[in-house]
Amino acid sequence: MTNLIGMKDIEKDIHRVLDDALTMKNGRISFAPLKGKVLSMLFEKPSLRTRVSLEVGFRQLGGHPIYLSPNEVGIGKRESTHDVAMVLSRFADIITYRAFLHQNMVELSEYATVPVINALDDLEHPCQIMADLLTIKEHKGNFKRKLAYVGDGNNVCNSLLLGSAMVGMDISAATPEGYGPDPGIVKMARAISGKTWCTVELTHDPLEGVKGADVIYTDTWTSMGNDEERDERMKVFPPFQVNRKLAEEADEDYIFMHCLPVHRGEEVTDEIIDGPHSVVFDEAENRMHAQKAIILWALDIPVVTPE
Amino acid sequence: MTNLIGMKDIEKDIHRVLDDALTMKNGRISFAPLKGKVLSMLFEKPSLRTRVSLEVGFRQLGGHPIYLSPNEVGIGKRESTHDVAMVLSRFADIITYRAFLHQNMVELSEYATVPVINALDDLEHPCQIMADLLTIKEHKGNFKRKLAYVGDGNNVCNSLLLGSAMVGMDISAATPEGYGPDPGIVKMARAISGKTWCTVELTHDPLEGVKGADVIYTDTWTSMGNDEERDERMKVFPPFQVNRKLAEEADEDYIFMHCLPVHRGEEVTDEIIDGPHSVVFDEAENRMHAQKAIILWALDIPVVTPE
Amino acid sequence: MTNLIGMKDIEKDIHRVLDDALTMKNGRISFAPLKGKVLSMLFEKPSLRTRVSLEVGFRQLGGHPIYLSPNEVGIGKRESTHDVAMVLSRFADIITYRAFLHQNMVELSEYATVPVINALDDLEHPCQIMADLLTIKEHKGNFKRKLAYVGDGNNVCNSLLLGSAMVGMDISAATPEGYGPDPGIVKMARAISGKTWCTVELTHDPLEGVKGADVIYTDTWTSMGNDEERDERMKVFPPFQVNRKLAEEADEDYIFMHCLPVHRGEEVTDEIIDGPHSVVFDEAENRMHAQKAIILWALDIPVVTPE
Repeated sequence: MTNLIGMKDIEKDIHRVLDDALTMKNGRISFAPLKGKVLSMLFEKPSLRTRVSLEVGFRQLGGHPIYLSPNEVGIGKRESTHDVAMVLSRFADIITYRAFLHQNMVELSEYATVPVINALDDLEHPCQIMADLLTIKEHKGNFKRKLAYVGDGNNVCNSLLLGSAMVGMDISAATPEGYGPDPGIVKMARAISGKTWCTVELTHDPLEGVKGADVIYTDTWTSMGNDEERDERMKVFPPFQVNRKLAEEADEDYIFMHCLPVHRGEEVTDEIIDGPHSVVFDEAENRMHAQKAIILWALDIPVVTPE
Repeated sequence: MTNLIGMKDIEKDIHRVLDDALTMKNGRISFAPLKGKVLSMLFEKPSLRTRVSLEVGFRQLGGHPIYLSPNEVGIGKRESTHDVAMVLSRFADIITYRAFLHQNMVELSEYATVPVINALDDLEHPCQIMADLLTIKEHKGNFKRKLAYVGDGNNVCNSLLLGSAMVGMDISAATPEGYGPDPGIVKMARAISGKTWCTVELTHDPLEGVKGADVIYTDTWTSMGNDEERDERMKVFPPFQVNRKLAEEADEDYIFMHCLPVHRGEEVTDEIIDGPHSVVFDEAENRMHAQKAIILWALDIPVVTPE
Repeated sequence: MTNLIGMKDIEKDIHRVLDDALTMKNGRISFAPLKGKVLSMLFEKPSLRTRVSLEVGFRQLGGHPIYLSPNEVGIGKRESTHDVAMVLSRFADIITYRAFLHQNMVELSEYATVPVINALDDLEHPCQIMADLLTIKEHKGNFKRKLAYVGDGNNVCNSLLLGSAMVGMDISAATPEGYGPDPGIVKMARAISGKTWCTVELTHDPLEGVKGADVIYTDTWTSMGNDEERDERMKVFPPFQVNRKLAEEADEDYIFMHCLPVHRGEEVTDEIIDGPHSVVFDEAENRMHAQKAIILWALDIPVVTPE
């Protein structure tokens, strides 16, 4: 069974999957390998980007996506994770799951008899990071780069640390004290970076983090159900705003990335996200291309290019 | 970019689009011009008719519709209109949008890079009116007629004024004082009627309005989020109920129209809406046929009939 | 018009429809008889199994399913049952409806001009029972068996009584006093059983009910909006739990069935539902196969097998 619960699951195939995504994006291959196949999209929280990109991508490959909203799901409430996994496995060929808790993600994948793809939980966001790496590959040509993540050490930061290490890209994560990435993930990223000859750096100084970066990446300061911490977070995060001053520390050809949705004026200024360095909508579009490649990979279906 | 934000946008093509709708309705043309195309249906408020008619129609043309419910959308709350427009434009080929505020409709269409179709806002409801004109064309053969709108001078009334003027049909709108149609729209309708040789009449007397009418049209007295005004409205609107007495003023072959949903016993009696003059379910079905033609028009795809 | 409002509607075709379901399940017939057809799925309460099984099955037959959630439906609130039925009949070729009240189900079917399939109401659940009979046929080979229903005399129990009687399977329903099946249904089941030479037995003693049974069937004790009775029900239902002790009364090759979702530890122990006799996930999968056959039956479309 090939799942994508965390970035680690795709480590050995990461370059192939990115290549497949790019092939499908550029080649406009007209094959329908998922004809007759069903994608069950489980969402415990609402989503625009993930939902639309998954549905359009799955459809383009010939399959039939079914969106199950938070109201229908009721995992653990209306029905146990075990039973939901068993039942959906009878109807769907693959499941994507947006969960509040990583523990639920793991549990669902253990009981399901079809592949489970993590479409965001509180620990990781691998679909996003595959789209991000695709975007960097397109805009920068290679991964001999430095990515500076600035802000909250959240799920996106966690998966970025792993993804960057896997492709050999230097990464620096600048977060306020007490808001760093998951220690287990950091350890794992460092172990990987030893094999790919890149650096994994943590700092509390955004200026230092961004120095010489080819990519500046940030994310919202209040997501994934931590809205109640908002007041407190608004005190410590402002020095981590991506603005003109901070961006001046980066390489002059830097690109700005954000997984969206954005809180404009908080983690980034309009000037930056709407400016010439921003690639955030390419990044959003790449969600679809990356996920198509991930789904084919999980189902072990090769991407065939015409001769 | 061809949008349909208000009736004015379709003025020069209105007859062609109505003809196309009729061709597709009657000819059951089996072509799939939207194969591979995606419709993103944004709804800020729940919908039965609009949602189903859009989804079925888009599907019949070979495309893939995606319904985004009020929970997922969160325009202006979860994400700015600008960002939603930019992101959806990457995944969808065309967007339909049911908005509370016309201002949001305009904003979305300005930022989107694909066509935006107004599926109702507080100022206009062009998809409905195209279906209405189609229904009149079918039942009355031509537009050398008089339409009497009776009741609330709302979005439907506004678009009817414009649509009637465009096709050269006399229109009379009878509304209570203080509940008339939008003055800017009335001015625009009168300017158009000067070129199409028809009349645009406003009155506060429903009997006068309906006199000699070929079409009696009404709509609910409390819609679009004005439920809190209900008590007040219930005092002024009753004289504008469409009932047997009022209908006797119309031409004996009059047809009764209503865009639904109806509050039976308020704006219209059961006797009238369920009676032999009522064409409300033909009108509902025509939503689909009109919208198919509108979508093809917006995408600049010709309706091809077999030789 | 062929509706499936209650089991009675399918009585004369029940064996043919079960055979068709099995043919499609096993034969993987690749025909698309529903190409261009639309299924409108109306749900007044959320659903996982019914919704996904209907959508996947309809899709497999080539059609386009549209899910209308409780938010969109608003039958009787936003719009009268009559108007919803009339409008949907213009767009959909067939309607499935999950209703709170049987009365609404009947009303919708009376006004609709396309077939209406009961996808659960407070009196019956025929789609479930067709799946159950299919499951018994698969696992037991024939209906010369005894089914013991244990627990709440609800909609599932009602339809099981009718379905069992129709196929000539002995059925015993063991319920607490005051929680028995619908008297009218019981009378109808007994009348049918007179023609099919089987027994319909009611009891308040679960041990007696289960004695010698080939099938033990239970369902949740608190469903269909009776949550407020929960405390009271928790006092009277525990003796009706399906556990190892009760199962020892059954035939040694008994199968355990449950329509799900289950409240583990209430109506059934983990040991039983997760044990070797349990066929609950086959039963869940069979929802899809049975419903495909039901839909084709309602639309009068034959299941064609290749020569």
